[in-house]
Amino acid sequence: MNRNIKRMADFFAAGPCKLRPHFKAHKTPEIAKRQLAAGSCTGLTCATVFEAEVAASFCDDVLIANEVIGSDMTARVAGLAARGVNIKVAVDSPEGLEQIAAAASELGVEVGVLVDLNVGMPRCGVAPGEPAVDLARRVADTEGIRLRGAMGYEGHAVGIPDREQREAAARASMDSLLLTVQAIRNAGLPCDIVSAGGTGTYDITGRIPGITEIQAGSYVLKDTSYGKLDLPFEQAFWVLATVISRPSPVLCVADAGLKSCTEDHGNPAVRDIEGASILFLSDEHASIALPPESPVHVGDRIHLVPSHIDPTINLHDVFYAIDGDRIEPWPIAARGHGAAE
Amino acid sequence: MNRNIKRMADFFAAGPCKLRPHFKAHKTPEIAKRQLAAGSCTGLTCATVFEAEVAASFCDDVLIANEVIGSDMTARVAGLAARGVNIKVAVDSPEGLEQIAAAASELGVEVGVLVDLNVGMPRCGVAPGEPAVDLARRVADTEGIRLRGAMGYEGHAVGIPDREQREAAARASMDSLLLTVQAIRNAGLPCDIVSAGGTGTYDITGRIPGITEIQAGSYVLKDTSYGKLDLPFEQAFWVLATVISRPSPVLCVADAGLKSCTEDHGNPAVRDIEGASILFLSDEHASIALPPESPVHVGDRIHLVPSHIDPTINLHDVFYAIDGDRIEPWPIAARGHGAAE
Repeated sequence: MNRNIKRMADFFAAGPCKLRPHFKAHKTPEIAKRQLAAGSCTGLTCATVFEAEVAASFCDDVLIANEVIGSDMTARVAGLAARGVNIKVAVDSPEGLEQIAAAASELGVEVGVLVDLNVGMPRCGVAPGEPAVDLARRVADTEGIRLRGAMGYEGHAVGIPDREQREAAARASMDSLLLTVQAIRNAGLPCDIVSAGGTGTYDITGRIPGITEIQAGSYVLKDTSYGKLDLPFEQAFWVLATVISRPSPVLCVADAGLKSCTEDHGNPAVRDIEGASILFLSDEHASIALPPESPVHVGDRIHLVPSHIDPTINLHDVFYAIDGDRIEPWPIAARGHGAAE
Repeated sequence: MNRNIKRMADFFAAGPCKLRPHFKAHKTPEIAKRQLAAGSCTGLTCATVFEAEVAASFCDDVLIANEVIGSDMTARVAGLAARGVNIKVAVDSPEGLEQIAAAASELGVEVGVLVDLNVGMPRCGVAPGEPAVDLARRVADTEGIRLRGAMGYEGHAVGIPDREQREAAARASMDSLLLTVQAIRNAGLPCDIVSAGGTGTYDITGRIPGITEIQAGSYVLKDTSYGKLDLPFEQAFWVLATVISRPSPVLCVADAGLKSCTEDHGNPAVRDIEGASILFLSDEHASIALPPESPVHVGDRIHLVPSHIDPTINLHDVFYAIDGDRIEPWPIAARGHGAAE
């Protein structure tokens, strides 16, 4: 993990583009603090208001790269601004803008906004071009709100294994983002921050002139999905499981299932048993196909390699961080929504 | 939920087979207490030691229908016996038996054991017939351990949509289980408990003479997977989400993704929008395909219907239980492993 952090910080040390590590990947202050300490960072990226609240206890520049809707949530964002945090949120609709502005006015604070552009993935984001410029104008004209820039996440590109195809998809998205940024500036509006990118595109998008920061998260611990790409990062976390059954020569069962690992990016891999692969996960079990005569016994500890870092970590309350002989528990503190019951 | 609980209790009221509701489905004491209070129950089924510890605070007859391996975990099982809980665990190997016996001896207590049989699903369980009888003999001869019976979970059968095929698969599994139970008894060994079944087979397996209890869990809240079967239970829980973006006429985005719902049994369904379906889940988003002109707006609250109850609930820390105008938070208290850091 430390090597991954250093490699990424070194890449962005030269600038002008910087790194804004995505806290959602691990939700763990002990990790985020190390990412920030390594340098080359503008602040942290978050996906939820609670992540931003946890992040704000050790970082004063936080972007919620997501739409924040609902008066309970917008009030918490304004509360962060009132505490002096340089908080920014993504906005992609007039309704969303009104909601965050109402919360800011209520507390008499100013909240930063990035116009969120859809650059190719069917998710949030206003359409590039004129609709985005219209929204930016509206943002700039809204009391309690300060237009800080634009973002466009090329999430459909970050996981493409073939480097050339990935680069082409990322560049097409960034063309769309940067043309709109130019149009926003031509309209006389400020657009200081241009935020994009992920672990799969950090060295593509991060070298395109005009992009000011990259929202990469997974690089810090990695998973088997990003393991298929040509990235200079090392697998740095595993789910430790115990073999609880060896019912046949070609099968063992470990005590880590759907409540310990996710399979949305495919089954986890098995690190310690040559030729083994997961047949299926059930709630509390991994049924693992073995080559015959594998030396696997009830009680063996094995490491599963997660296929998707973010939702896998979200299943757990604590990391056990290993540094030589030292093992430290690191709370995954920003899991959930932190709302009072 | 109350109707589901009553229907299931009514089904088992006549006996001789009873219900042992599976706590793993919801991990929520407020729900389990209502299941027990409805009657027809032998106790609770659990999948983890921590579930058993939480269950033991309001139920004195607990089966861990799973192999318990590792001295930290077996010590906790023996600890439950020391507290006077009628605790039983599944065992499918001599190694597993030795481990639980060592923990029982350490505390000078007796732990109940069910021989866990593989009745068709590639997961835990000793092979039926002679291997199972051998293991039962070993269990009966082990100090600190009391042979209480056998179990065999027909997990490959419970989800088969076609009733006839489901019944055939369940009956074949139970033939295998009951023949072995007979062989264990013929060997002069006790076998009082014969535990099997799930929500999909409760009225098949639960009517086969010789089966003494059914380990059903999902019936209490249901999901879209069990919704495909001909079961008399009603959907009783949803994930409440907020529409945070309406980027195009045919797309909206809600703030519930892979960290709020699982997709191991397929994407959740969308309850409140006619013709809507989830395109994909990402970490914090559901991208939802809409029929054009759907009256969906930023800020709308929508209900997602989970496809798989157990791992979905495991993502959350609390239920909001709705009874008319009353809303009560019910902690999902047995999530995780409860180990001290």
